[in-house]
Amino acid sequence: MRRVRVGLSQVNPTVGAVEANARLVIAGMERARALGCDIVAFPELVLTGYPPEDLLFKPAFIEANLRALAEVARASRGLTAIVGYVDKRDDIFNAAAILHDGVVAGTYHKQYLPNYGVFDENRYFQSGTESPVFTIGDTVIAANICEDIWYPTGPTTLQALGGAELVVSINASPYHAGKGRFREKMLATRAADDLVCLAFVNTVGGQDELIFDGQSFMFNEKGECVARGKAFEEDFVVADLDLDEVFRARLHDSRRRKEKLRATEAPPRRVTLPPLPAPERPRLPAHEVAVLEPVEEIYQALVLGARDYVTKNGFRHVVLGLSGGIDSSLVAAIACDALGPANVTGVTMSSQFSSKGTRADAARLARNLGIEFLRLPITPVLNAYRRALAKPFKGLKEDVTEENLQARIRGNYLMALSNKFGWLVLTTGNKSEIGVGYSTLYGDMAGGFAVIKDVPKTLVYQVSEHVNRRVGREVIPRSVFERAPSAELRPDQTDQDTLPPYATLDAILEAYVEGDQGVADIVARGFDAATVKRVIAMVDRNEYKRRQGPIGIKITPRAFGKDWRLPIVNRFRE
Amino acid sequence: MRRVRVGLSQVNPTVGAVEANARLVIAGMERARALGCDIVAFPELVLTGYPPEDLLFKPAFIEANLRALAEVARASRGLTAIVGYVDKRDDIFNAAAILHDGVVAGTYHKQYLPNYGVFDENRYFQSGTESPVFTIGDTVIAANICEDIWYPTGPTTLQALGGAELVVSINASPYHAGKGRFREKMLATRAADDLVCLAFVNTVGGQDELIFDGQSFMFNEKGECVARGKAFEEDFVVADLDLDEVFRARLHDSRRRKEKLRATEAPPRRVTLPPLPAPERPRLPAHEVAVLEPVEEIYQALVLGARDYVTKNGFRHVVLGLSGGIDSSLVAAIACDALGPANVTGVTMSSQFSSKGTRADAARLARNLGIEFLRLPITPVLNAYRRALAKPFKGLKEDVTEENLQARIRGNYLMALSNKFGWLVLTTGNKSEIGVGYSTLYGDMAGGFAVIKDVPKTLVYQVSEHVNRRVGREVIPRSVFERAPSAELRPDQTDQDTLPPYATLDAILEAYVEGDQGVADIVARGFDAATVKRVIAMVDRNEYKRRQGPIGIKITPRAFGKDWRLPIVNRFRE
Repeated sequence: MRRVRVGLSQVNPTVGAVEANARLVIAGMERARALGCDIVAFPELVLTGYPPEDLLFKPAFIEANLRALAEVARASRGLTAIVGYVDKRDDIFNAAAILHDGVVAGTYHKQYLPNYGVFDENRYFQSGTESPVFTIGDTVIAANICEDIWYPTGPTTLQALGGAELVVSINASPYHAGKGRFREKMLATRAADDLVCLAFVNTVGGQDELIFDGQSFMFNEKGECVARGKAFEEDFVVADLDLDEVFRARLHDSRRRKEKLRATEAPPRRVTLPPLPAPERPRLPAHEVAVLEPVEEIYQALVLGARDYVTKNGFRHVVLGLSGGIDSSLVAAIACDALGPANVTGVTMSSQFSSKGTRADAARLARNLGIEFLRLPITPVLNAYRRALAKPFKGLKEDVTEENLQARIRGNYLMALSNKFGWLVLTTGNKSEIGVGYSTLYGDMAGGFAVIKDVPKTLVYQVSEHVNRRVGREVIPRSVFERAPSAELRPDQTDQDTLPPYATLDAILEAYVEGDQGVADIVARGFDAATVKRVIAMVDRNEYKRRQGPIGIKITPRAFGKDWRLPIVNRFRE
Repeated sequence: MRRVRVGLSQVNPTVGAVEANARLVIAGMERARALGCDIVAFPELVLTGYPPEDLLFKPAFIEANLRALAEVARASRGLTAIVGYVDKRDDIFNAAAILHDGVVAGTYHKQYLPNYGVFDENRYFQSGTESPVFTIGDTVIAANICEDIWYPTGPTTLQALGGAELVVSINASPYHAGKGRFREKMLATRAADDLVCLAFVNTVGGQDELIFDGQSFMFNEKGECVARGKAFEEDFVVADLDLDEVFRARLHDSRRRKEKLRATEAPPRRVTLPPLPAPERPRLPAHEVAVLEPVEEIYQALVLGARDYVTKNGFRHVVLGLSGGIDSSLVAAIACDALGPANVTGVTMSSQFSSKGTRADAARLARNLGIEFLRLPITPVLNAYRRALAKPFKGLKEDVTEENLQARIRGNYLMALSNKFGWLVLTTGNKSEIGVGYSTLYGDMAGGFAVIKDVPKTLVYQVSEHVNRRVGREVIPRSVFERAPSAELRPDQTDQDTLPPYATLDAILEAYVEGDQGVADIVARGFDAATVKRVIAMVDRNEYKRRQGPIGIKITPRAFGKDWRLPIVNRFRE
């Protein structure tokens, strides 16, 4: 029986940390050897981290990545390893090196370069044109990269027709809620369609706004999942694949395969590599991976995103304002899970408009979480501003100016703590308020990372309920859920003085932002036309604010980030 | 003699203002009729404005643009007009409509989609594949779009070989300093190589960070410029082109043309349109266009960029801080030229560290410009912050925290004026300080538009000298030029305590930012290695600040904007 043992090294590289990333790869090879793997695969661009963006324009960066490739190639003795890197020929390519027994035995160049959504790969890379397959003893394998696997008649099909019994797909496939299930179904179909074993390795970790969720998989030629990696953490997935089963399945399907092969332009080039002595194969340990409930999945994505942004930027401690509202409560809880309560400071910055209830809730939340808690009232500074501006503002009523000043004093307090103690400021705005601009630039928008900026308000409540449920106690006080949301910048203010109910607002925003639907489409779904127009106009008008806000974690199909490129000067109104 | 009168309507459309843009086109057609033009051309995507970015994902936006096209088509009676719009088939195309006597007689789809620099056209458009030519009576013309003309064997060559005697190139070609001269040379070469008359119409105006400089041209088949449009303002360029000259030149070159034609895959499709009665041809008025000196060119670009950003966003009045330094002085001068002194307010916000000299200079500048001048000292508010933060800061020395607080109080003052009076805040940071992060987030970086963010400090001095020279009097006080630059945030501070001399800094930044050069390249040019490494590290480390700064006008080949996509999490260090 022809059996091949495959390891998928689901690692968390850091963009730019080329040498450290190479060490991750070498450690993965050692693990593969200890587990008796014939083949081990690493994610797309694992040596550079993904996405490296304009670092790719720096020749020194490309060279560093090639030096790292040479180093990991030397470390591949006795193994076959598939490693993502940037290849340099007359141009640069998003590439997979096929390392074999200490040398670079072959290279695959990504053919389908995504240039939509958060991706700009046409900006950097040349497309590959070849789909080679590699014969190693009695095994035939091939590799391709991320987007390539999403095309039903792409390189995978060609490589399988060309004889590959195992196709390794290396990925840096960004997360959004629910994408994992969709990806799994697609991969199962691809394996069964092409009668090929499929090993899908994905990177894991946060990079700026993107989360990579891991969830690597292996499928047999029936499309059955035979191994699965964890979500949102590093993992090493191993499975034995029976290639004789592939051979048998193809015999039964030989007529259709011959038809398909005739339809291809040219069969892929076949490269023969020297066989390696069979490794000793210890028994594989059991590897149980829990499938996450939808809200837990989102929560874990947020925790990983916060942790990686903070630590990969060299910070250890974060600070945030605690208003006693649901948004800052949730961000504080996420920060504690990401960094530990000892590394989180909450600050309550009350004014004359802060209610007793919100002040008490902020304190209770800090106690429940076990974080440091500071009190910095803003009224004395606000009064100093009032006096300073008395002359130019003479005879004018107080208005949004003074509301914004309150938010900006709070922003300044947090930034002062950040400057003095080297803490990173987390902002607490949610997707609904960032969408309609219900926030103060340089005020509550001031900070380094916007943890829940892609979480709509209605989902903020769901995730917050889950925070309490998952630990089985009241972390976020019950009263926080029950009080009407308010910015507390003027007497008896509530969000709903200015905004439609959040259930309505979120539905309109989802249709407009994620669905690119217009007024007519959204009204047709039963919403009031005036409300729809008002919400859309608010989104458009506040582009300048979003442009100056901090980045934050993407969890939906379309976040306000790389995949939202609206002009600021924009007179389009439906 | 076959003579054709061509008009180029160099207009300033606004992104999203589809109906207003259509009115601009209709007005251009009327002008063309009055001047007896046979053909009139408008810029690339004139109906949508350029670049429309993600508005292109909105079906309602595409439909509005198609309705506008139908409207301008109806207005084309008696004329041939080339109009840029978005065509919708199975996908969308960056297109040129050939309007003829009231109908859409043909369409060209852009073939070369730029996806580098500031461009992301692969994100939106499908590429065209056809290069049709249009026969109108005894005239043969063709159109193509922007990037297409930059390829020496692109559509222009094919269309000329296919019989076109006039190729109309419609453009939205963004400005950087000196690009106009380069473009002119390229166009002259293309006309002469292809023995074709070339009419190049470019859009004019500011759109977010981009400036379109106009400078439309017409060339005869010898590559001689026969007409030229103004830079940085709307214009209507007309010339009579002698197509018999094209015919004669081609006769003399017929052997080479036949060779070239044989080498093409297929000659372009030829479309025949009904001839139109010859219009009455009034004598053309003289049209003198001054060629701008390099520094005047940059100055005019900045004035246009500031004016269009402010007015296209619906503002009339701007406010900025006047520190008595060179940067804010220059921005104030630009704002006055852009909007008029009555629409500019300068604010001096002195502290205990402000020198008498800078305070006096700020006042003198305001007087010289004739703008409103406000004084808002910051010390009382700073002291209020000190008291408020006394407890958490107990026992700690003053440091950059208190420096940043000063800058942030100033930012808050300006934003308060903005909120109260509906003024737009202009920021005054230059490219050198934005490059190395020598600026305070939410402080001096607070504002809507960063007028000189792409102007390096050494160039700020040159442009400022020019400000005085061009009006022949001291607008910016002499002492401003002579004083050592300082942020005045602590006693006796100067920029050079922290930064290398600006001549050195700017040279290193240009090599690193515009040239993607690494440490070794820059050191090889004679700079100190430690300085080079320090500057590069500062640029990399401060990406998070730039990401939250306001957008500003691009005047160099690479600005901190759309064409600078560095990750924030980035551990690459040479």
